[in-house]
Amino acid sequence: MKGAILTVCPEATLVDISHEIPAHDVAAGALTLEAACDSFPPATVFLAVVDPGVGSERRPIALAAGRFLFVGPDNGLFTFLLDAQPLARVRLIANPILRRPRVSPVFQGRDIFGPAAGHLARELALDEVGPVVPDPVRLALPAKTCGADGCLGVVVRADRFGNLVTNLLEKDLDSLAAGGRQGFEIVAGGLTLPLVRAYSDVPIGSLCALIGSSSRLEIAIRQGRADGLPQLATGVAVSVHRAG
Amino acid sequence: MKGAILTVCPEATLVDISHEIPAHDVAAGALTLEAACDSFPPATVFLAVVDPGVGSERRPIALAAGRFLFVGPDNGLFTFLLDAQPLARVRLIANPILRRPRVSPVFQGRDIFGPAAGHLARELALDEVGPVVPDPVRLALPAKTCGADGCLGVVVRADRFGNLVTNLLEKDLDSLAAGGRQGFEIVAGGLTLPLVRAYSDVPIGSLCALIGSSSRLEIAIRQGRADGLPQLATGVAVSVHRAG
Amino acid sequence: MKGAILTVCPEATLVDISHEIPAHDVAAGALTLEAACDSFPPATVFLAVVDPGVGSERRPIALAAGRFLFVGPDNGLFTFLLDAQPLARVRLIANPILRRPRVSPVFQGRDIFGPAAGHLARELALDEVGPVVPDPVRLALPAKTCGADGCLGVVVRADRFGNLVTNLLEKDLDSLAAGGRQGFEIVAGGLTLPLVRAYSDVPIGSLCALIGSSSRLEIAIRQGRADGLPQLATGVAVSVHRAG
Repeated sequence: MKGAILTVCPEATLVDISHEIPAHDVAAGALTLEAACDSFPPATVFLAVVDPGVGSERRPIALAAGRFLFVGPDNGLFTFLLDAQPLARVRLIANPILRRPRVSPVFQGRDIFGPAAGHLARELALDEVGPVVPDPVRLALPAKTCGADGCLGVVVRADRFGNLVTNLLEKDLDSLAAGGRQGFEIVAGGLTLPLVRAYSDVPIGSLCALIGSSSRLEIAIRQGRADGLPQLATGVAVSVHRAG
Repeated sequence: MKGAILTVCPEATLVDISHEIPAHDVAAGALTLEAACDSFPPATVFLAVVDPGVGSERRPIALAAGRFLFVGPDNGLFTFLLDAQPLARVRLIANPILRRPRVSPVFQGRDIFGPAAGHLARELALDEVGPVVPDPVRLALPAKTCGADGCLGVVVRADRFGNLVTNLLEKDLDSLAAGGRQGFEIVAGGLTLPLVRAYSDVPIGSLCALIGSSSRLEIAIRQGRADGLPQLATGVAVSVHRAG
Repeated sequence: MKGAILTVCPEATLVDISHEIPAHDVAAGALTLEAACDSFPPATVFLAVVDPGVGSERRPIALAAGRFLFVGPDNGLFTFLLDAQPLARVRLIANPILRRPRVSPVFQGRDIFGPAAGHLARELALDEVGPVVPDPVRLALPAKTCGADGCLGVVVRADRFGNLVTNLLEKDLDSLAAGGRQGFEIVAGGLTLPLVRAYSDVPIGSLCALIGSSSRLEIAIRQGRADGLPQLATGVAVSVHRAG
């Protein structure tokens, strides 16, 4: 895939965001992309391929969302970006100049997405990519509710450190009482955890909850792995509420 | 090794092809290199070091094959390229300007191959590298037979998705009856599998065989791992023949 | 973190030294950095973040040591560089232009170290980074003794090939009798090993000791993993002495 990008755009700077998305785990890819992209320079092209449906009818797409461009399969990988950027423009990759001459039905990363990303990096206009896609696929996300008295969400993923990422965003917690987050605690899987600022606010080996590097509420064990606890599997409900 | 390349050729664009070759597995390295190189721009220099014989008498070599250059140990890593490119030119890395001043007997990737690749990327002529190597080492590959009625090969490797790569190339299957691949099936390890176009042609969790991203016949479980099946270990015979 | 670097310094060439430092293992990071940095071009900026104390009072630092610059947490990651370069200059990262506008208490790699590295790569003077740090943290290293008759050290780490790296440097062994290393052997964990030049000096599957790619004495099994032997865990004493 990188060879295909460089064939089109030899001057590209390539950055690997992660080598650790589990095979076929579109939701993990979507969360990783959301967490990473804000730190990159404007006009960065993100090529994301977690693609269990390769070779089927799922559409190859390119989109402009915020100050970035994205290329990949239309399977929900871009859900969080589409949610955050209501004005995102989505196009089908249909222009034949964006494909390699032979397209393998098992490796479109190399044969479609790589070349398309290379052309976008060379400033091809998004409108040249293909027709508008009015209904890009979004992941069915677990529900969450937030109000002045607390929030209710779920664990959605363990990251590579074993921290448990939830579907609650930092800005969801901003809706808590004007007094700020002091005085709130988390209950998940029958465990009660303090809501802290940094891992170092609790002793080594202790459970805590905090806003992690992805701007989401995470459950962690300082210098340990929270994903080893059977009570805290993916899907477990997480409640944020006033302590005591 | 990358530092050694950049010391010689600061303007090089470095791409990691794989971090997942098992230690000392020359055949896996050779197959990975074959699968990757076709997608890169002309004149790319491929530096490949799977080198269980480092520090022994095995020769360091550089070669020009097709539109690419290759650098690495003479231990069979380049077997498939040499087979595909009968006009490949192979040279011993002997020119002292291509080495770091001190050569460790355990890390020639840094001290010989990296600098040599850097000089070739800066357009040093291959003939300057050292004398001709008339007899580069090739891996002893398992036999295969192909004809109009079918092909017989073996499983040679599991890739990182758990797909089982065989020694049968897409072009080997081209020798099947002029009617194309329709109507053919695969038998391996006592199992009979459909020959399909893409993973999505079978239900999730089902076995199939198809031409994979490396242009080789592969055995796969859709969204699963075929390398977990004891019947399908490396070395198992794979037969392609007319169904029914 | 890479996005933060490229935002400040779009022309940077980024190289990943390792993806395999165990989480929170500062000593492994320090050893990996020591082993890698000598091969890079002068003025390379090394960004190292193994940071179990992120969000606590530990200081963010930048240093000039030898011909290189380093950026990371003040937790001992730079111990070997400070030991090797007594004239190293260490500064606190305090200049507000070196930080992203919002600094997460859990991801200073992105919000402090990445931007600081980008500015140093753009040739910001080290003195502009912040005030002098007179007392950078150093790891408490296990003791070693070396003389003309032998050396005594310990195993400090297993590398990714399963080789056991010790705290004895190549130059420590230079203090052995003027006759050179011939005639010396290693005892560790009750096992006696030959001191050889390269893995290929012993049969496949045999234990040996040699100066590894990091210029340290290592214990290895040729084409095997020495870290599987219970007698040779991290912390085991390693003696180098005249054989017989």
